[in-house]
Amino acid sequence: MKLLTIYGSSRKNGNSEALTKKVLQQLNPKDVDEIHLMDVHIEPIVDERHTEHGFRPVDDDYEKLAIQIMNHQVLLFSTPLYWYGMSGRMKNLIDRFTQSLRSTEYDFKEKMKGKKMYVIIVGGQSAPYTALPLVQQFQLIAQFMEIEFSGYVIGRGVKPLEVLEDEEAIVQAIQLGKRIRGELK
Amino acid sequence: MKLLTIYGSSRKNGNSEALTKKVLQQLNPKDVDEIHLMDVHIEPIVDERHTEHGFRPVDDDYEKLAIQIMNHQVLLFSTPLYWYGMSGRMKNLIDRFTQSLRSTEYDFKEKMKGKKMYVIIVGGQSAPYTALPLVQQFQLIAQFMEIEFSGYVIGRGVKPLEVLEDEEAIVQAIQLGKRIRGELK
Amino acid sequence: MKLLTIYGSSRKNGNSEALTKKVLQQLNPKDVDEIHLMDVHIEPIVDERHTEHGFRPVDDDYEKLAIQIMNHQVLLFSTPLYWYGMSGRMKNLIDRFTQSLRSTEYDFKEKMKGKKMYVIIVGGQSAPYTALPLVQQFQLIAQFMEIEFSGYVIGRGVKPLEVLEDEEAIVQAIQLGKRIRGELK
Amino acid sequence: MKLLTIYGSSRKNGNSEALTKKVLQQLNPKDVDEIHLMDVHIEPIVDERHTEHGFRPVDDDYEKLAIQIMNHQVLLFSTPLYWYGMSGRMKNLIDRFTQSLRSTEYDFKEKMKGKKMYVIIVGGQSAPYTALPLVQQFQLIAQFMEIEFSGYVIGRGVKPLEVLEDEEAIVQAIQLGKRIRGELK
Repeated sequence: MKLLTIYGSSRKNGNSEALTKKVLQQLNPKDVDEIHLMDVHIEPIVDERHTEHGFRPVDDDYEKLAIQIMNHQVLLFSTPLYWYGMSGRMKNLIDRFTQSLRSTEYDFKEKMKGKKMYVIIVGGQSAPYTALPLVQQFQLIAQFMEIEFSGYVIGRGVKPLEVLEDEEAIVQAIQLGKRIRGELK
Repeated sequence: MKLLTIYGSSRKNGNSEALTKKVLQQLNPKDVDEIHLMDVHIEPIVDERHTEHGFRPVDDDYEKLAIQIMNHQVLLFSTPLYWYGMSGRMKNLIDRFTQSLRSTEYDFKEKMKGKKMYVIIVGGQSAPYTALPLVQQFQLIAQFMEIEFSGYVIGRGVKPLEVLEDEEAIVQAIQLGKRIRGELK
Repeated sequence: MKLLTIYGSSRKNGNSEALTKKVLQQLNPKDVDEIHLMDVHIEPIVDERHTEHGFRPVDDDYEKLAIQIMNHQVLLFSTPLYWYGMSGRMKNLIDRFTQSLRSTEYDFKEKMKGKKMYVIIVGGQSAPYTALPLVQQFQLIAQFMEIEFSGYVIGRGVKPLEVLEDEEAIVQAIQLGKRIRGELK
Repeated sequence: MKLLTIYGSSRKNGNSEALTKKVLQQLNPKDVDEIHLMDVHIEPIVDERHTEHGFRPVDDDYEKLAIQIMNHQVLLFSTPLYWYGMSGRMKNLIDRFTQSLRSTEYDFKEKMKGKKMYVIIVGGQSAPYTALPLVQQFQLIAQFMEIEFSGYVIGRGVKPLEVLEDEEAIVQAIQLGKRIRGELK
C-alpha cells in the first residue's frame, strides 16, 4: 500500500512542503510517491457535461495524474493556504475529477472509494482558524467520494521555512506520520 | 458607480449565470459590466515572493482584469459550486491578487479597500449547507482586503437552468438586486 | 401533519420571533404549534451515561417537551444568535436529547428519523456570515438524527423589531412559509 | 499571571477533563485555578436589555464567576462536544456575559480585552471535523471580545478516558501546555 503526496504549492521547498516532509520522514521512502503540481500542466475544466459530445480529451497531464491517484490507496494533499483556500493549481486538479467521473475508461468513483486521505495546510499566524473552511471543504470532498479523511495538520509560516518554528504543528506532523506508517504496513 | 460581474463558470449560460441575471435585471444595464473567466486566459500563480527578482510579468490577461476590477466600486463574484469551492478559474484569478499586492504600478490594497462585494453560488440540492465554507472563505477574503461583503445568494440547480425552479433563491436574488440598485445610485 | 415551532429566545416578541411569524403567517394556524422555551423549565443535562444506574428522572418539563417534539413531523427552531450560537435554553433542550436516546419508554432515534427541520436565526448586521457555524451545527445535528434540514433564514436585527426592516430576510421567510405550506398538506 | 480552566462537562473525570489535564500538567500548579460548571449554579439569561429596568440581579453563582474570569489573564475553556457545540452549561455562562456587558459595577469589555484564550474539545471519532463550527464560534467570541484565541486541541474519546488513546491529541495538548507555561511566566 503506497501513499501519494500531491503538492499544490506554486513554490518549491516552501513551508507546506517542509511541514509535509515531517510526516513523510516517518515513512519508509519506498512507500511514498510525490508529485508537484508545479511540474505538471493541468488545464482548468471546461464543463461539457451538458453537451452532446460530452467531455473531449484535453492535451495536458491530467489523465496521467488521475491514473496515478487511482493507483494509490492513500492520498496526502499538501497545500499552502492561498486566500483561505487550496491553491488554484490544486483546485484545477480537483475540478477535473468531474471529467473522470464521466470517463468510460475507468470507474473513478469506484476506484476512489475507500481510499484514505490526509491534508497538510500551511498559512499565516491565524491559519489554525482561517484554514477551517478549507478543512471543511476537504471533508465534504471526502464524504462525496466515500474517501476516509483520516487527519490533517495546520501549520503557521510565511517566511521561508518559518513553519519549522511552529512546534505544535511539527509534533502533530510527526505523530501523524507515525500513525500513517502503521497504516501503510 | 458601477458593478463588475465576474463569472467563474466553465460553461456559458449555466445555472450560476442564470441566477446572477436575476440580480442584474434589477439594475440599470449601463451600471453593469460583465466578464466571463472562460473568455480570458489567466495562469495559475507562480509564487516568486521570496526570489530576488520578485514577480515577473506573465503573458496572459491578468493585469488587464486586475485594472478592470480596481476600476469598479462594486464586485459580484458568480460561481458554480465545484467540489465545494469556487471554480479553479476563479481561484486562479484570486491567487494572482498576491502578485498585485506587490505591484509597483498601483496600490492594490488601497484601491480594493472600501469596495463592496456580492457573491452568487449555485450548487446541488444541499448547496445551502455545503456552500457555507465557500461563503466563509469569501468572507475572510473580504475581511483581509477591507472590502465590505454585502450579500450572497446560494441557489440549487444541476441540470441546465434548473436553478430557475428554486423560488427561494430567485426571490432572494431579485431582492438583492433591488438593494444593489439603490446602492449604485 | 403539523409543525412545532420552538422559540429559544429569552425575550418574548423579540426579533427572532418576529421573523418566524413571517413564516408561520403563510401556514394554516391549525397546522402550527408553538412553544417558548422561556415558558418551560429545562435543566442542563447531567451526563449519567457511564453510571450503573444510567439517567435518572429529572423533575422538569423536558419529557413533556420531548414527547411533543416526537409527535410533530416538522420542527422549526427559532433562535436569536447569542454569542454566535443558539441560546443556552435551546442548547439545554438539545443536550437532553442524549437522555432520550437512552430512554426505554420510546425509541427516540426512530421517532425523530425522517422528520423535517427548519431554522430561523436573527443576529446583528453581520449575522449572514457569523451565523454560519450555527447553521453548520444544526446541519450536523440533522445528519446525526437522520432529519431532513430543509431550509433556514438568517435575519438581521438588534433593536426591538428591527428585523422587520431586513427586506431580504422577510421575502425569504415568506417564500419559505409558502413552501412549508405545500409540504404540510 | 494565572490561568483559569472552566470545565463545561456535565460529568466529572470525563474525557475533556482528562485531555485538559495533559495541558495543565505542564504548568506550575500555583498558576492554575479550575472551576467545574457542574459545581456551580448558573441560570440561563433572561434578556432584559430592552426593558426599562434593565437586567435585574439573579440569585445564582454567575457574578462570582464573572469576577473570577475577569481576574485571570488566561482562560481555558474545556468542553465535551455535545451535539456539535459547547455544553449547555457553558453556553448558559457565556450568554450571561451579555448581562456583564451592561454592568455598572465593572467595565467587562475593558477587563476581558487582551486576555488569552485556549479551548479543549473532546468528541467522537469525527470530532476533528465536526468540532470545527464550535472552534469557529469560539473564534468569533474571541474576536468580539478582543481576546486572543491562542490555541485549541480537539480530542477523540467517548468511552470513559478513551481520549488517552488519542496520541495525536495527547502530544498536541502537552505541546500546548509547554507553550502556555512559557507565556505564564
